[in-house]
Amino acid sequence: MSAHAQRGKFITFEGLDGSGKSTQLEKLAKVLRAGGCSVVTTREPGGTTTGEKIRHVLLDSGTAGLSSQAELALMFASRAQHIKEVIQPALHEGKIVLCDRFTDSTEAYQGGGRKLGSDPVLQLHDILCGGLRPDLTILMDSDVAASVERARRRNKTRHSSRGKSDENRFEQESRAFFSRVRHAFLAIAEREPQRVVVVNARGTRAQTHAKIVELVRKKLKLAK
Amino acid sequence: MSAHAQRGKFITFEGLDGSGKSTQLEKLAKVLRAGGCSVVTTREPGGTTTGEKIRHVLLDSGTAGLSSQAELALMFASRAQHIKEVIQPALHEGKIVLCDRFTDSTEAYQGGGRKLGSDPVLQLHDILCGGLRPDLTILMDSDVAASVERARRRNKTRHSSRGKSDENRFEQESRAFFSRVRHAFLAIAEREPQRVVVVNARGTRAQTHAKIVELVRKKLKLAK
Repeated sequence: MSAHAQRGKFITFEGLDGSGKSTQLEKLAKVLRAGGCSVVTTREPGGTTTGEKIRHVLLDSGTAGLSSQAELALMFASRAQHIKEVIQPALHEGKIVLCDRFTDSTEAYQGGGRKLGSDPVLQLHDILCGGLRPDLTILMDSDVAASVERARRRNKTRHSSRGKSDENRFEQESRAFFSRVRHAFLAIAEREPQRVVVVNARGTRAQTHAKIVELVRKKLKLAK
Repeated sequence: MSAHAQRGKFITFEGLDGSGKSTQLEKLAKVLRAGGCSVVTTREPGGTTTGEKIRHVLLDSGTAGLSSQAELALMFASRAQHIKEVIQPALHEGKIVLCDRFTDSTEAYQGGGRKLGSDPVLQLHDILCGGLRPDLTILMDSDVAASVERARRRNKTRHSSRGKSDENRFEQESRAFFSRVRHAFLAIAEREPQRVVVVNARGTRAQTHAKIVELVRKKLKLAK
């Protein structure tokens, strides 16, 4: 699949909750579309009808006592469906797919955060994801404390406006958990420097955006 | 886990839809309880609050276009949670756990029926199920045509009484699909004769029940 000549480009955004991934993904999509590219934006877990049902099971803080192995399998169930229904068809049509979280998040959160290790995550990826790898991964690196604080604030607002349903199962995790997640992300970047670019997400939105546009243009060899 | 001396016994029932598994499981549970055993009856997919949510995603015929890989991962998500929440605690307390479907069903339906092969199923089991193996598996062998017909009738009744929600995604499969499933089950029994006992499910309920009680007593060395 990754060797397919006519396919589009698969770009993933990774990082801690509250690192600004989603905002930067949308800003990049705008720029690429303005430049004439056909762009699909999507997210994990979720991205499909089935995936959103799974997302609800995964993120709802009402799902107490979910085992780490069940969580891992659910992440890949959502991913396998997402690849088949959204990502593969778009890539086959030559589109640029911008995806908010992919397997690196599973390696960082379940492998690092939940201490399952990288091996089971990479094995499940091989078994269930048909060899799909991102062409480029933008890792938004931010401070653990700042990210947790931002995510909590955002979640509070969202929670009060959405009634019973909330998505803060992960956001209730400890600082130590998020610190393990951050280090796991950085270890992936060190292991795969050709694919993963670390972007310092501590600057202003505009600064970060400019950096991302620059590196995407270079990496994908797009005209200015 | 399987080497744990003080644990209870884990017995699974396998077979095609409509082969009479659930009925026979309940009849066996009654006999064992009457004999003074502490018995837990459960089923897959499902068996836990999270698992029942996953069961709904898996079996609802509204979940069209579910990829085989996503289906496989969902089965193991449900299983991992079930093991942690229900099966392991009961076994640690020395109970007999009777479970309607386990990994053999995944090997038969997703591996055989969906043609994913046995390898990915057995690999996921190793990664996600902590080495748990049944002490005894009762494989209810029945004719494909009869099973499909029985399952359809049962589903029709259930459907009309339950309104919108139904569980017939698998029951809409073709005869060829169920034939592959049956052969995959029989191949497992041939591979693991120490664990899997094939019971001819074509006789009367009482005949089948008598056979099952006999073989469970022998296998588990229970007094008459």
